[in-house]
Amino acid sequence: MPDPHKLVECVPNFSEGRNPEKIEQIVTPFRGKETVKLLDYQRDEDHNRMVVTVVGEPDDLKEAVIEAMGKAIDVIDMRQHHGQHPRMGAIDVVPFIPIKNMPLAETIDLSKEVARLASEKYNLPVFLYEASASHPERENLANIRKGEFEGLVEKLKRPQWRPDFGPAQIHPTAGVTAIGARMPLVAYNVNLDTDNLEIADQIARKVRHISGGLRYCKAIGVELKDRAIVQVSMNMTDYTRTALYRVFELIRIEAERYGIGIVGSEIVGLVPMQALIDSAAYYLRVENFSMDQVLETRLME
Amino acid sequence: MPDPHKLVECVPNFSEGRNPEKIEQIVTPFRGKETVKLLDYQRDEDHNRMVVTVVGEPDDLKEAVIEAMGKAIDVIDMRQHHGQHPRMGAIDVVPFIPIKNMPLAETIDLSKEVARLASEKYNLPVFLYEASASHPERENLANIRKGEFEGLVEKLKRPQWRPDFGPAQIHPTAGVTAIGARMPLVAYNVNLDTDNLEIADQIARKVRHISGGLRYCKAIGVELKDRAIVQVSMNMTDYTRTALYRVFELIRIEAERYGIGIVGSEIVGLVPMQALIDSAAYYLRVENFSMDQVLETRLME
Repeated sequence: MPDPHKLVECVPNFSEGRNPEKIEQIVTPFRGKETVKLLDYQRDEDHNRMVVTVVGEPDDLKEAVIEAMGKAIDVIDMRQHHGQHPRMGAIDVVPFIPIKNMPLAETIDLSKEVARLASEKYNLPVFLYEASASHPERENLANIRKGEFEGLVEKLKRPQWRPDFGPAQIHPTAGVTAIGARMPLVAYNVNLDTDNLEIADQIARKVRHISGGLRYCKAIGVELKDRAIVQVSMNMTDYTRTALYRVFELIRIEAERYGIGIVGSEIVGLVPMQALIDSAAYYLRVENFSMDQVLETRLME
Repeated sequence: MPDPHKLVECVPNFSEGRNPEKIEQIVTPFRGKETVKLLDYQRDEDHNRMVVTVVGEPDDLKEAVIEAMGKAIDVIDMRQHHGQHPRMGAIDVVPFIPIKNMPLAETIDLSKEVARLASEKYNLPVFLYEASASHPERENLANIRKGEFEGLVEKLKRPQWRPDFGPAQIHPTAGVTAIGARMPLVAYNVNLDTDNLEIADQIARKVRHISGGLRYCKAIGVELKDRAIVQVSMNMTDYTRTALYRVFELIRIEAERYGIGIVGSEIVGLVPMQALIDSAAYYLRVENFSMDQVLETRLME
């Protein structure tokens, strides 16, 4: 048997959400590579921004991303860019996400190689962020992006904001890019049988990492006004370590002290099958289960 | 977007489990087709039988199966065949199983086309069975195979056992073949915290279809002597209609009347991801979930 295919996802954000011809030029490199699959691209006119979702084997994906970055630099001039979303570059942010047969460590290496190659080829300053960050204060994208395109001219002159790759000054038209690796996010919300937002907030505080909860859980309370209920709205930042069923059961237990039940839950957007299968295996008490027993795992090898 | 790919599985059983060269000749056609993937082939020397697991798009899979049937007819002489497993032909049985974007009805059509083409090409008598059966008494393979290779010479002369395709007499060296469509089987066992086989048997009777239980569940009680426990051992014959969590919960409720708990459960062999994701969605109370939200579904399109 040959080595199983490695699959990585990339979700680059480009600062162009209005001009269809420019958008087409940017996404074209994701269409030509054998193992690369363009899953989605969504443009937002108000944000003047486009989010691309693409999956592929590491080498092909690397090439395609670097090509698309070049196209974005060709067609976007940040000096003319206006939109509601915070942004600092023509290619604003390029997260790589391990999908299959790919440890996070290799995904970090891939992100650094793309950062190095793209910074050399385009003379572009690049910050590494998330799991690829060189300093803890660079893990969070918001810290890097603070000041945005206009403010980064000065920010890059400060030694602690020297880019990880490329020159210590912004690209005149393309600004600055952040590149990094992170685990897949699962957007998971649990709906409570109450309209009391305070209760959702309190439960969110108990289950989220920052205030003492589960390591890979971010949570806030949110009102669903049309349904007259509230929800604990979460981003699960590593479902392989903080399983969905665990946060679901914790919320159930916390809600019980208020005499409140769980109405339902929601998964927003895409979810890797393992995130759900782990929960099925827990509730069904499956012994010695392996993901290799899932037919679809075998089909994708 | 082009039409999503249709995927069908085929698990043909060939009456050759000993001679590696013959086995290689039979499986070769499954290696050459673009969309066809040979997932597994297991030979059994005692049974003198080989079970092939192969997946592909309908047209390619059809061609490959018909080619492999021809190879099996070339290299197997049923007059010389001995083995422990009941058998009636060189290609004993050819089940087709819908995997993706493929309704059972289309899979039935595919099985009939393979039956027609192969019977014409090889002058082979073919019975349709399972969901493709032309009469209720032909649904069950055991009914068709009764008499085995040696007994079928006479059986085929009786009007009610006239084959669905091909001549009303056995192929002199290749015997008779059964071809049909069925839903994927999930082999699912639930282990009970008791060594009392009678209890497992009683619960099996309550959950299985034949004695009043769930429509797509076959069940028996089984002893696990090395663990000193018993299990309800099941074949779930259509997980899309009889979900795993439903039979698990029924067994839990029935075990409670004996004061007995569930130790765990087992999934034997391969399972389609949806069978487990349906159970996760139940326990996590996920609202409005669609299989299109599973990343792997998108990757396979």
